[in-house]
Amino acid sequence: MVTSSDRIKEVTVVAPINIALIKYWGKRDEVLMLPYNDSISISINDICAKTRLRIGPSVTEDSVFVNGVKMDLDKEKGFLRLFSEVRRLTRKRKVKDSVCNDEDASNSDKFSKFEVMSETNFPVGAGLASSAAGYAAIAFALGKLYNFDESDIVRIARQGSGSACRSIMSGFVHWKAGIRQDGTDCICETVASPDHWKSLRAIVLVTLHEKKSIGSTSGMRQTAKTSELFRHRVDKVIPEHVKKLRKAIYDKDFATFAAITMSESNQLHALCMDTNPPLKYLSEDSWHLIRIVHAVNDAVKSTKLAYTFDAGPNCTLFLEEDFVPTALAAVKKYCLLTDDLFGMALNV
Amino acid sequence: MVTSSDRIKEVTVVAPINIALIKYWGKRDEVLMLPYNDSISISINDICAKTRLRIGPSVTEDSVFVNGVKMDLDKEKGFLRLFSEVRRLTRKRKVKDSVCNDEDASNSDKFSKFEVMSETNFPVGAGLASSAAGYAAIAFALGKLYNFDESDIVRIARQGSGSACRSIMSGFVHWKAGIRQDGTDCICETVASPDHWKSLRAIVLVTLHEKKSIGSTSGMRQTAKTSELFRHRVDKVIPEHVKKLRKAIYDKDFATFAAITMSESNQLHALCMDTNPPLKYLSEDSWHLIRIVHAVNDAVKSTKLAYTFDAGPNCTLFLEEDFVPTALAAVKKYCLLTDDLFGMALNV
Repeated sequence: MVTSSDRIKEVTVVAPINIALIKYWGKRDEVLMLPYNDSISISINDICAKTRLRIGPSVTEDSVFVNGVKMDLDKEKGFLRLFSEVRRLTRKRKVKDSVCNDEDASNSDKFSKFEVMSETNFPVGAGLASSAAGYAAIAFALGKLYNFDESDIVRIARQGSGSACRSIMSGFVHWKAGIRQDGTDCICETVASPDHWKSLRAIVLVTLHEKKSIGSTSGMRQTAKTSELFRHRVDKVIPEHVKKLRKAIYDKDFATFAAITMSESNQLHALCMDTNPPLKYLSEDSWHLIRIVHAVNDAVKSTKLAYTFDAGPNCTLFLEEDFVPTALAAVKKYCLLTDDLFGMALNV
Repeated sequence: MVTSSDRIKEVTVVAPINIALIKYWGKRDEVLMLPYNDSISISINDICAKTRLRIGPSVTEDSVFVNGVKMDLDKEKGFLRLFSEVRRLTRKRKVKDSVCNDEDASNSDKFSKFEVMSETNFPVGAGLASSAAGYAAIAFALGKLYNFDESDIVRIARQGSGSACRSIMSGFVHWKAGIRQDGTDCICETVASPDHWKSLRAIVLVTLHEKKSIGSTSGMRQTAKTSELFRHRVDKVIPEHVKKLRKAIYDKDFATFAAITMSESNQLHALCMDTNPPLKYLSEDSWHLIRIVHAVNDAVKSTKLAYTFDAGPNCTLFLEEDFVPTALAAVKKYCLLTDDLFGMALNV
């Protein structure tokens, strides 16, 4: 006798958070979740989401638990968009496979409800790209179960949260915006593996655990709609930044890497300021950290430390291994963080 | 007998502060004090500097007193630059006049030291364009004494502080950047007299009396040098803003006036953010005011209130007469200002 448990399929995967070096801000297509511009991120493997996905007859409704808390799927739209995309892809495959009579595929919609259990090793909602890691893990798990190829996984992850697709890969990831209307050239590509730049370190500083007041989705929509500087950044500045940053990564040229990373962070927040009404994601603590980084670089007469801030007040510092003691000493001396350093000198 | 006092020349003038609607940020020529872009301001006659200028045999050194405090002319470079420009102009005139033997002119360099006594009816150094009003008053006084024409007075005032030249005139003033290298097409022009838009009011809110940490001169130098968005603003955005704002002023179209004014304020601070290292002039109080203005406009479903911030945390609100009670009530209810409202519903 075949028990129902035999027909349960379960897979567990891990996905890292990613920190944007070239910032993603604005969707050229909100249905297909296509960005206006290329972005480049670095995956931090030490900070990750571990996700168990189950499908089978006993799974009768979609459910998502994050660190034991059941999500309200009517509020967290990303999960349903992601599940819909998977269903669309499996239906599409079924239509195709009905011709070649593939039993596995034709069975796929029997297992059409998803049970997701996610655990993160960092506080959720602290503005640490937690959703990106979470969505990436789900997309990756679904990809394993259904044997999707990478481009499908990227598209599925994107439906959860645009930048989640960058968490599908390790190391330095280049998310290409593409120009096609159907999004088929919107892909992710590894610029370099984590092994390439062994001395690079990240320090993630959590200054705030509160949820931010303006979500990224509505924020970036407002910027794209109202900022007069937005198109210039997309058309002229970003292509230059992408070229220079890729080269800096290949060359392990920290000073250039730092200059582009800080400029990108500042420019994201400049565009937020140029939005109507203006958006403010940086706090006084963020500014304090910005000043400390510049002061440290001035003091050592060389660019040894870089900061980046996403649409939130938390900071990621980048530096090379030999500068870790100096940087940690400076941060501890001059910062009163509300939390301990979240990640100390993480490998990237 | 002719006493020395007979030969004292003295003149007293008054000059208003001006609030930039289209923002000046960056000098294309630091010697001639020529701006990169046009700007438009409004002179607030109720907030002004009253300046007495004396020259004569008993005045044996340059001196400047502001509200009774003697300025250190080695530190406040603007005064010496301004005096130098006057001397240059009088020498030039003397050379010219030696041909036609004009006695007044040939005597001019006997009276070559200046004594300036300035009184302001507002706190100096509070970021209220105090220096602009002060320099404008000195330039105006010198113009009266030496019978300079307006273009000379504009050039003299600019040597004190670029934006001072806008305080030479009342009402709405358009400072044209010009394109000539010698600055002869860098002029000020009245867009409309204060009488033109009788219902317009300004409320100046002083949130901070401290001197700001980064002066405008070095700030704007850094922006012009490092911001990747700066040229786009100068070349593309500002000409559009100037055209639209001039029309809004002519039409007394408050909603458009407010939209451009707020966008200009936001964009100035966006460029400051896009500077390396980034510049921060807005405080949490400034942001609080920004949010209140948008909330008030949302509440009345119409743009009735506009804010603008220069390179400092203080705010000027613009509104029409009929909205003054509502606006003051909102500001009083939601703001804890460190000072009383500085100017309450000033005529512009």
